[in-house]
Amino acid sequence: MSYSTFETEISVRPDDIDFLNHVHSSKYFDYVLAARYDQMARCYGFSMEQFIARGLGWVVKEAHIEHKRPLMMGDRVRVQTRVAEFGKDGVRVEFVMLRHASGKICSQGWSYYTLVELATGRAAALPSDVVEKYSI
Amino acid sequence: MSYSTFETEISVRPDDIDFLNHVHSSKYFDYVLAARYDQMARCYGFSMEQFIARGLGWVVKEAHIEHKRPLMMGDRVRVQTRVAEFGKDGVRVEFVMLRHASGKICSQGWSYYTLVELATGRAAALPSDVVEKYSI
Amino acid sequence: MSYSTFETEISVRPDDIDFLNHVHSSKYFDYVLAARYDQMARCYGFSMEQFIARGLGWVVKEAHIEHKRPLMMGDRVRVQTRVAEFGKDGVRVEFVMLRHASGKICSQGWSYYTLVELATGRAAALPSDVVEKYSI
Amino acid sequence: MSYSTFETEISVRPDDIDFLNHVHSSKYFDYVLAARYDQMARCYGFSMEQFIARGLGWVVKEAHIEHKRPLMMGDRVRVQTRVAEFGKDGVRVEFVMLRHASGKICSQGWSYYTLVELATGRAAALPSDVVEKYSI
Repeated sequence: MSYSTFETEISVRPDDIDFLNHVHSSKYFDYVLAARYDQMARCYGFSMEQFIARGLGWVVKEAHIEHKRPLMMGDRVRVQTRVAEFGKDGVRVEFVMLRHASGKICSQGWSYYTLVELATGRAAALPSDVVEKYSI
Repeated sequence: MSYSTFETEISVRPDDIDFLNHVHSSKYFDYVLAARYDQMARCYGFSMEQFIARGLGWVVKEAHIEHKRPLMMGDRVRVQTRVAEFGKDGVRVEFVMLRHASGKICSQGWSYYTLVELATGRAAALPSDVVEKYSI
Repeated sequence: MSYSTFETEISVRPDDIDFLNHVHSSKYFDYVLAARYDQMARCYGFSMEQFIARGLGWVVKEAHIEHKRPLMMGDRVRVQTRVAEFGKDGVRVEFVMLRHASGKICSQGWSYYTLVELATGRAAALPSDVVEKYSI
Repeated sequence: MSYSTFETEISVRPDDIDFLNHVHSSKYFDYVLAARYDQMARCYGFSMEQFIARGLGWVVKEAHIEHKRPLMMGDRVRVQTRVAEFGKDGVRVEFVMLRHASGKICSQGWSYYTLVELATGRAAALPSDVVEKYSI
């Protein structure tokens, strides 16, 4: 059993570069987040805006990353993500980032996102239609 | 006498959004910077990397911005910039940002960039080939 | 007629530093914002949380900055702000940033903040008690 | 065998807050980085500037974080870090973040930092005096 992998291309911005002339380490998670937002709407058919309209949001509960090669000024990066498993109140998403020019892996890891009620901040059980949409 | 206007399209990233659900005010300058980097290489034929290879860099000496309408999550923005005037040691660049979906102006302003020697941080006279390349 | 100047001390964070080994130009506005938040609660007795509780927020309508000397890794900066004038729906605030170690001015400028209704995003007339609190 | 834990207090800045009204998830790593910089100079007696002067720098090779409670606007956070183990070319550092007001744990995790030669970007063997300084 395995779920689909989707890809979003992102351009490194100059403000992402730190004093070591690399993309700053914490920005890689922002690229993953940007890719998920794009893919939620474009690939899963359940956008962040639709979650918010239901009073729901996603928060990062746990995250892991390994850096293999740094991204640099001017790079484009292909961010691939896929649902790895469903939890009771969330989803574990694996990601791989590849430098566009070389096709080589820059970073990889995973994030566990908890679904929360925006009004209370409390974890919410995954609605069945969400599980269905995300099970492609 | 007037110089060419160039345009770069940028996607708002989720990490650009602040607690008021708008693109955070200081990020607009990062969009301008990203547009200039793109246009330096693609439109002027004198990329930031080429400046660095000569031991030169650009720093913001002065900047001004007016916000008319906020950019939101999921927006794409068209960032138009043009050289407005040359100074002894720098260039004043005007910018306009338009929301892609509506074509309406979100923000506009200008930045004065000083050319500096990277080794010393001191202002450098504009080389004649830079003036020439930027005078289109 | 003149209003009080208040000061907040802020430490430069490593993630504020860009590839030129300076504090990134757009971050200076974030320091001003952090100083205003601190001063709203501590000096004016009308915190951002109190505005939000009334359904009000502040957005940047216009901003201007001049950079004189860059801030560097490890620096502490003293951010001084003062109300310069009241508008119908907002306030113009002037700021000066001084490097703690030298006492020298790094950057200075001003921001015009518009008061908005959070529910609609529309500009709101300044309530009389806000004008009173800010008129010290 | 165990190494010392050091603590740095950091104030949440308004630009750290995202559209969910929490500190943005990737910013927690920036707080850890800021704490390490402070502690390198203040607690270990081997500052980042000293590493750079030797042509060395630290890059994140791997990082892991678990979020328990979100940090909010106006919070102060106590960032505790300690060396957990030495590798051939780096150091694994564990961190815990506590909300100052409650003393409760917000987030915890670890980062593996590789020492690199700044000129080449290649991993460097840990110099013996670095191991000594970090073994307190």
